[in-house]
Amino acid sequence: MMKSKITVIGGGSWGTSLANILAENGHLTRIYARDKSVVDSINEKNINHKYFPEIKLHEDLKAVNDFKKAVSEAEVIVISVPTHAAEKVCSELKKYTAEKTLIVSTAKGIEEENFKVNSEIIKDAGFKNVVVLSGPTHAEEVIKKLPTAIVSASRNKENAEKVQDLFMSPYFRVYTNPDLIGVELGGAVKNVIALASGICDGLDFGDNTRAALITRALMEMGRFVDYHGGKKMTLAGLSGMGDLVVTCTSMHSRNRRFGIEIGKGKSIAEAKDRVKQVVEGVKTTRAIYKWLEKENLELEMPITYQVYNVLFNDKDPYQAVDQLMLRSKKHEMEAVVDKSLWNI
Amino acid sequence: MMKSKITVIGGGSWGTSLANILAENGHLTRIYARDKSVVDSINEKNINHKYFPEIKLHEDLKAVNDFKKAVSEAEVIVISVPTHAAEKVCSELKKYTAEKTLIVSTAKGIEEENFKVNSEIIKDAGFKNVVVLSGPTHAEEVIKKLPTAIVSASRNKENAEKVQDLFMSPYFRVYTNPDLIGVELGGAVKNVIALASGICDGLDFGDNTRAALITRALMEMGRFVDYHGGKKMTLAGLSGMGDLVVTCTSMHSRNRRFGIEIGKGKSIAEAKDRVKQVVEGVKTTRAIYKWLEKENLELEMPITYQVYNVLFNDKDPYQAVDQLMLRSKKHEMEAVVDKSLWNI
Repeated sequence: MMKSKITVIGGGSWGTSLANILAENGHLTRIYARDKSVVDSINEKNINHKYFPEIKLHEDLKAVNDFKKAVSEAEVIVISVPTHAAEKVCSELKKYTAEKTLIVSTAKGIEEENFKVNSEIIKDAGFKNVVVLSGPTHAEEVIKKLPTAIVSASRNKENAEKVQDLFMSPYFRVYTNPDLIGVELGGAVKNVIALASGICDGLDFGDNTRAALITRALMEMGRFVDYHGGKKMTLAGLSGMGDLVVTCTSMHSRNRRFGIEIGKGKSIAEAKDRVKQVVEGVKTTRAIYKWLEKENLELEMPITYQVYNVLFNDKDPYQAVDQLMLRSKKHEMEAVVDKSLWNI
Repeated sequence: MMKSKITVIGGGSWGTSLANILAENGHLTRIYARDKSVVDSINEKNINHKYFPEIKLHEDLKAVNDFKKAVSEAEVIVISVPTHAAEKVCSELKKYTAEKTLIVSTAKGIEEENFKVNSEIIKDAGFKNVVVLSGPTHAEEVIKKLPTAIVSASRNKENAEKVQDLFMSPYFRVYTNPDLIGVELGGAVKNVIALASGICDGLDFGDNTRAALITRALMEMGRFVDYHGGKKMTLAGLSGMGDLVVTCTSMHSRNRRFGIEIGKGKSIAEAKDRVKQVVEGVKTTRAIYKWLEKENLELEMPITYQVYNVLFNDKDPYQAVDQLMLRSKKHEMEAVVDKSLWNI
């Protein structure tokens, strides 16, 4: 395989994990990090002291603190910053990078003001070749080389396969999927559901409750993705159900841990204080809620609606879960109840 | 609602939990248990000392030790015994019970010799009205009244709704679904997957690996259900994905706990010794494998195949997982890769 010059923007846990795979695969890989101490620890000790103080990174992986230098010669750029920072990063990036440069997006969120997913933000900044990486992939496990599978999504097959080839390794399986919007929206909404799942856990509900919630959530995600022109079947894959399951059950998930604090009666500020890192789901909840209000849509998203009210309208979490569980529907789901099956 | 005379056959954890709901709902409910000590503890102390020594059951719930007496006057019979015992129970039951009696089946398994699901066993014994209850419902949580959702499945709408009405309560939501075979096969196969998930955990793989496994499993379950005339969409519901998720992530799952022991290198005998209760997944794995061999089918069921080899052919679990993770497929799934989506 051709070796590429690749720059990963963002020295967080996910950016570091992805950069490490790329370096292992022989690509000339650089991490751009704002935090000088992270840059130094990578260059001097081959560790990211802030996120993985005990993990030795690949010896060829280097970091830089100078944005222009970091990106201007790269053939591929991996953007690993939270959604709310993506627009600013992209407009900076455009100054030094050709519009045909392959851009890989790794954030899972929806920008609040204009209701854009990350691939839209990147395209609107003037880049033509955008691929989204998404799936059930906690950085804490990828950095330890535990077997992981992820999706490389793009309408452009060649680009999706290029990114697949860059990252594919014995413990990191990359699958392609052309349903970009389905992959991206699935990854974003699942963070809202992870908050809900955490809230249930914080209220001391059990595994049965969570399973019912996740099942209902998949229907809700399906309606949302379908409305935006994505494929419901994508939600049965890694970036939908796979990511939903891992986020709702793993203690690695910041969104779930945040939800647990809320379920225990903590305020948003207190929960933020506990979880520390960025919690995309909180912003995504507000983005979807505002969008539903603005468009005056009758799209049924009861979980997102209840999470919004708990987070932003001081609704009692117990009451919210109770209302979700006791809704009046009696058939399992719209799609299954094919009337011809009833043999009355 | 009309109050019914209902007998639950089986004094295990699930039978007890279901009987308790029925008694709470005001039905004249009896548990038939072979174990005299269980019958006595229910009748004398309102507890099932063997499974829930600390839980007070409803005071009107009674138990009987005499099979004929237990079943002959019942309007509804709930069968809560393992699949391998179902045929014997049904032929006994037929002696004292009219063929039109409503029978509720709660086991999740496939009978090995003739490859029958529980509803088939019951129908073949001569009963006309059979409803299957299935979903993500650990007894240990239902008995504590934690919010739970379940599916009442039957081709006969009236029967499905009758069972829905019998069990519905504030913490126990019952949904109907006409896709009987889809519900029943989903519940059976997910036990095989739970073994696989446990094996991964026993090998110390992480949440990412489990998410990839569950995602792939849903495809495998889909092919199996589709072959038998069930609906793939049912697998997106409570009895499919919902049950799969809870079984693969909860320590309440015997199948998962059994798999963990196997993943740690224990033999089947040692694992059985640890888990104690019946592990349906082991029998179901063998049943599906034998059926695939006999029918000489090219139905792709790689997870079931690997679990069989680990359990019955001494295959190294690590090698089995490795082969599952490294299979050559590169597109996410057959169904998603709609070629028209690629915008090359």
